[in-house]
Amino acid sequence: MADAENLWSTRPASALRAGPEVDLATLDRSATPGWEGGKNEARTFMAARGRLLSELQERLFAHGRSGGDRSVLLIVQGLDTAGKGGIVRHVVGMVDPQGVALRAFGVPTAEERRHHYLWRVRRALPRPGLIGVFDRSHYEDVLVARVDGTVEEDALPRRFSEINRFERQIAASGTTIVKVALLVSYEEQGLRLMKRLDRPDKHWKYDPGDVDTRRDWDAYQAAYADVLARTSTDVAPWHVVPVDRKWYARLAVTELLTQALVDLDLDWPRPRWRVDAQKRRLAATMSEESLQQAAANAEEEIAAYHQDEAEFAAAVARADTSPGPSGPAPGPAGDPGEQDGQDDGGASPSGGRSDVAGEPPARTTAAGRAKKNRKNKNGRETTARAQETRTTKRQKHKKDDRGSTSAAGGRKKSAAAGRKKSAAAGRKKSAKNSSGKKTR
Amino acid sequence: MADAENLWSTRPASALRAGPEVDLATLDRSATPGWEGGKNEARTFMAARGRLLSELQERLFAHGRSGGDRSVLLIVQGLDTAGKGGIVRHVVGMVDPQGVALRAFGVPTAEERRHHYLWRVRRALPRPGLIGVFDRSHYEDVLVARVDGTVEEDALPRRFSEINRFERQIAASGTTIVKVALLVSYEEQGLRLMKRLDRPDKHWKYDPGDVDTRRDWDAYQAAYADVLARTSTDVAPWHVVPVDRKWYARLAVTELLTQALVDLDLDWPRPRWRVDAQKRRLAATMSEESLQQAAANAEEEIAAYHQDEAEFAAAVARADTSPGPSGPAPGPAGDPGEQDGQDDGGASPSGGRSDVAGEPPARTTAAGRAKKNRKNKNGRETTARAQETRTTKRQKHKKDDRGSTSAAGGRKKSAAAGRKKSAAAGRKKSAKNSSGKKTR
Repeated sequence: MADAENLWSTRPASALRAGPEVDLATLDRSATPGWEGGKNEARTFMAARGRLLSELQERLFAHGRSGGDRSVLLIVQGLDTAGKGGIVRHVVGMVDPQGVALRAFGVPTAEERRHHYLWRVRRALPRPGLIGVFDRSHYEDVLVARVDGTVEEDALPRRFSEINRFERQIAASGTTIVKVALLVSYEEQGLRLMKRLDRPDKHWKYDPGDVDTRRDWDAYQAAYADVLARTSTDVAPWHVVPVDRKWYARLAVTELLTQALVDLDLDWPRPRWRVDAQKRRLAATMSEESLQQAAANAEEEIAAYHQDEAEFAAAVARADTSPGPSGPAPGPAGDPGEQDGQDDGGASPSGGRSDVAGEPPARTTAAGRAKKNRKNKNGRETTARAQETRTTKRQKHKKDDRGSTSAAGGRKKSAAAGRKKSAAAGRKKSAKNSSGKKTR
Repeated sequence: MADAENLWSTRPASALRAGPEVDLATLDRSATPGWEGGKNEARTFMAARGRLLSELQERLFAHGRSGGDRSVLLIVQGLDTAGKGGIVRHVVGMVDPQGVALRAFGVPTAEERRHHYLWRVRRALPRPGLIGVFDRSHYEDVLVARVDGTVEEDALPRRFSEINRFERQIAASGTTIVKVALLVSYEEQGLRLMKRLDRPDKHWKYDPGDVDTRRDWDAYQAAYADVLARTSTDVAPWHVVPVDRKWYARLAVTELLTQALVDLDLDWPRPRWRVDAQKRRLAATMSEESLQQAAANAEEEIAAYHQDEAEFAAAVARADTSPGPSGPAPGPAGDPGEQDGQDDGGASPSGGRSDVAGEPPARTTAAGRAKKNRKNKNGRETTARAQETRTTKRQKHKKDDRGSTSAAGGRKKSAAAGRKKSAAAGRKKSAKNSSGKKTR
């Protein structure tokens, strides 16, 4: 798994970012912007990224459970067959379902129609700690509503402003917004719809209305171009994802989501209770034998914890290595407040926003430390050092230097089992953590 | 993956089913009832089951999207550290997040307290087509409420009756209820809590109240015993899952969920539109070149469809092989209406309920056909034959014998890519599924 090679030459956050003028007519929807590999490399890399994403998600979840205010909102827009469902299944499906708040927005219900179009969206925003996923969204109200004529053309500028203001509020409240527009070609859409008609197991995905929508292709393309140009802001930029190659779309969205979580730079929350005091309370309920076993386990557990943290920090450091100045320019938008500008240090969105989080107090995170290392040395050195540390820990199984109170005790059968278990868990984690090497 | 050996000698639906008298005092919480293998075998088997579960879930989802009324509700109860979250992450996490409605029930909010205790539960029931998951449930109102004294002892019989009536209604409306009580030992709970205190990355999972709850251990065990004895009914039986070995708990719940979905015996829904007419409408929007490509794809797609169906039917046939009469008896309950009695043919819950579904009209499903085969021969024969069929299909890639209109054409890149893709998806799933090693 450590072999999964990072072949992103330009981060999708830059490579796919919509500028003020979006020319969808010339967009190659089978392109793979920023990714230098093919499908096989993408598969390996995405599996590794999935493990990192899952670890990052758990930290976000822990943050939310401990009074933190951060969350992530992935907004997925696209026409029929663009692969919205595939993104949910294959990208979002890589993380713990407990950390996901998924909402699909269909045709508004009678109740929803009685309210402002943002009403139902506001109610579906993710709580702190969660990754919210919108399968369609308020953008339907400036896309399908526009093409179907349920909103007048001259009302659109106001809606764009409302949406931008709305998203600015969401972002200010602690939610990182990741917007992806999945763009399929006209030809590929036809083939995908025909496949649904060819295969009885896909019939349920087909709706006769899909052909009607397809007939409005040009109007939808124009509507998308406007949306991308008018609602791509610093706090909520659009990413234009060509999806004729499904593997690329999933890879790109995985990377966008991973980077958004890396940028949050969250560490495990600090407890609001005293560890030693709680250990004493708990110990009072345990038998002498259990306590001996717990003490024996503790050593292994703490070692496993440090190993996991080192692996995580190394994976984040590799993930966090932005392309150098030789990389392609970040698209025509090029405004000063780049979403992916975390190299600017304190001026970065993550740096700025983590001040908002308030409680529990921010700590220098493993990721943060790794980032600092990376800034002092080159990425490859940091990675090598982290790996060395990890290997040493794994080989020596030394007593943890920060470990506290654990009373020495005989290794009991179940303690040995516990160790095997934690070693197995370590392996699992390590398989889980180690996303690949950085390439450049 | 066809190698994953089914080592269930007794289905968990039988092996774990709560009878009218539940003796939790003698329950071995590190036991692995019904499973003849160890942890390694469990891992392999669970990975294979995950893929089947995922396929079954997609059929349920399609059913729900096409007007069907069936759903599944997994109710997970257990004390702190019993592994409720692990079940959600590792079992429920194996299926498409779009098909899951997860709800965690915490301490009731002020609004919830103003209503009957079933009010919030009723609102969280899964819509047709979904797998609902309750992390805790209305059973908190006869467990924690009882131990904490917020409900009087003499009010309990009424609550038990209400709950049984409530669940009968849910079942009658098309929801298969799967109730699992996760039972951890007192010793193991102590060790798991201590681990949360030992590891800074687990602190967020610890709450000082956990020790208070632990001090009420005996009261909780008595409350659980009553719940299991009083609310295990034919339509909603309890399954008592020993969880000191986490791998067993996850394996058992995976199996319970899979069997519940197998018993639904759902096929892909029939379309409400005419396939040929829709193909013509769509074709009118496609270029000549696209149409040629679609025709070439169709042959491959239909072959792939039949291959998928054959593999699915074979997997269901293998899954559906109940233990013979030599298997252990189904526990002390032994009432005539066994939940897992799908061998009774028409009298089975699935046979009976599918009449309720009404529309779209029931078809003989691939699973149903496989089941019939199994009844004529022995299970192993059917399995071998099914595998042979599949292998033949895979090797020959013969032209589909039931395929309709598809014009012959060269094999195009995209169809081949599609096949490769599904193989890749299989591999990915398998990587995701494999959990840890056996400890003892």
